[in-house]
Amino acid sequence: MNALASTSQEAVATLGALIGVGLGPGDPELVTVKAARLIGAANVVAFFAKSGRASHARAIAAPYLAPGCEEIALLYPVTTEIPFDQPEYVSSLQHFYEDCVMRIRAVLEAGRDVTLLCEGDPLLYGSFMHMFARLDARFRIEICAGVSGMSGCFAAARQPMAWGDDILTVLPATLDEDRLASRLAETDAAVVMKLGGNFAKLRRAMTRAGVIDRAIYVERGAMPGEKIMRFADKRDDDAPYFSMALVPGRGRRP
Amino acid sequence: MNALASTSQEAVATLGALIGVGLGPGDPELVTVKAARLIGAANVVAFFAKSGRASHARAIAAPYLAPGCEEIALLYPVTTEIPFDQPEYVSSLQHFYEDCVMRIRAVLEAGRDVTLLCEGDPLLYGSFMHMFARLDARFRIEICAGVSGMSGCFAAARQPMAWGDDILTVLPATLDEDRLASRLAETDAAVVMKLGGNFAKLRRAMTRAGVIDRAIYVERGAMPGEKIMRFADKRDDDAPYFSMALVPGRGRRP
Repeated sequence: MNALASTSQEAVATLGALIGVGLGPGDPELVTVKAARLIGAANVVAFFAKSGRASHARAIAAPYLAPGCEEIALLYPVTTEIPFDQPEYVSSLQHFYEDCVMRIRAVLEAGRDVTLLCEGDPLLYGSFMHMFARLDARFRIEICAGVSGMSGCFAAARQPMAWGDDILTVLPATLDEDRLASRLAETDAAVVMKLGGNFAKLRRAMTRAGVIDRAIYVERGAMPGEKIMRFADKRDDDAPYFSMALVPGRGRRP
Repeated sequence: MNALASTSQEAVATLGALIGVGLGPGDPELVTVKAARLIGAANVVAFFAKSGRASHARAIAAPYLAPGCEEIALLYPVTTEIPFDQPEYVSSLQHFYEDCVMRIRAVLEAGRDVTLLCEGDPLLYGSFMHMFARLDARFRIEICAGVSGMSGCFAAARQPMAWGDDILTVLPATLDEDRLASRLAETDAAVVMKLGGNFAKLRRAMTRAGVIDRAIYVERGAMPGEKIMRFADKRDDDAPYFSMALVPGRGRRP
């Protein structure tokens, strides 16, 4: 082993680790015992938030944070204001993620761990994944699974979702109407995410697929201000971006 | 209000509640803070297990059980020995579930709560749902969401699963080969469950769908004896019933 290799190995040994911690759907009590322990032991936490808004992730983790813990707020410059297929959206987020990586990397290189607080489950539609993909080659990364936002909504709606051999499909409401309708028609159970702005289209797709009468609308599931109703009973087309629709399965029930 | 109605209302007030508690994928530390509290406060717990085997659910909950807590073991007479489309399977399970309901109901009618310990998330392919469907009309039922078995596997495999607007499909490997292949081909990300006995068929379906090279095999994810490998590297066709295959999405990554 030459001197360079040895130096490089020593450097690796003193680098901090990135710890991605799932926080569950919103209720601080739905944090896992492991996540509570990891958050309590953290000297540096990082969390995403929309610029100008309080961070949901930080609020969920707050009861477990140790006093004096250093906080890194990663503030999205843009979320739903620009359509995601616009070059401006892609470039804006690319710069944002690179900046987040730079800030996290600086702490890791100083030999300190960073605990990244992630709403829901870190590996299911989570911003954490963009950090993971950029930092995995060089740093030690640990991941603690969390209760997904979907599971929080199932419980909030008291709705058994998938039985026996049901096929369950998770669909973004951003899909075009034809695709939404065909996917809804051919699955046994469905979770539709990202309803905001797509509600009227989703209502048409659900009607065409013949599932609207058993669909449920969930707004802020497992969070303060939770609103749950039959999808067909919702008269307006207003839905926050993070609301969901559930189409429960009807599979094998001995 | 007549005397009968009043008596009936009093009875309802003194009935116990059924509490369905999600335990997560297997590691007792992946139990939520709420679940740990509910288990610790339980005077009567119930759990499913395969006859002659130790209960996974009970093992996960064990560190949180209060001393002297009464235990009701609900022992499946049959699980995978009989194909699920056989009348014998349906009738055997029907009798089993009716018997479980009778045992739980007797405790609830005596005015005591029953905490039903559920692996993973109670409302996602869980045995709890069969009790819920049979008891919901008459008893108060509370549900505590848990980390799903799937999420446990994502973290165990360190695998970001769904990005941006990916469609995620959860498929039972019990589907026929053509249906498996077409569903795998048309989704962005997939979780395939119930591999045992269906492994060779799933391998053919994955090959036809062109996803085998990015698929991952997870056995006993987040549990002792965990085994994770590239699906394509698995040479034999032996897989336990509760193993999973993951086909990660490749969606929007600014």
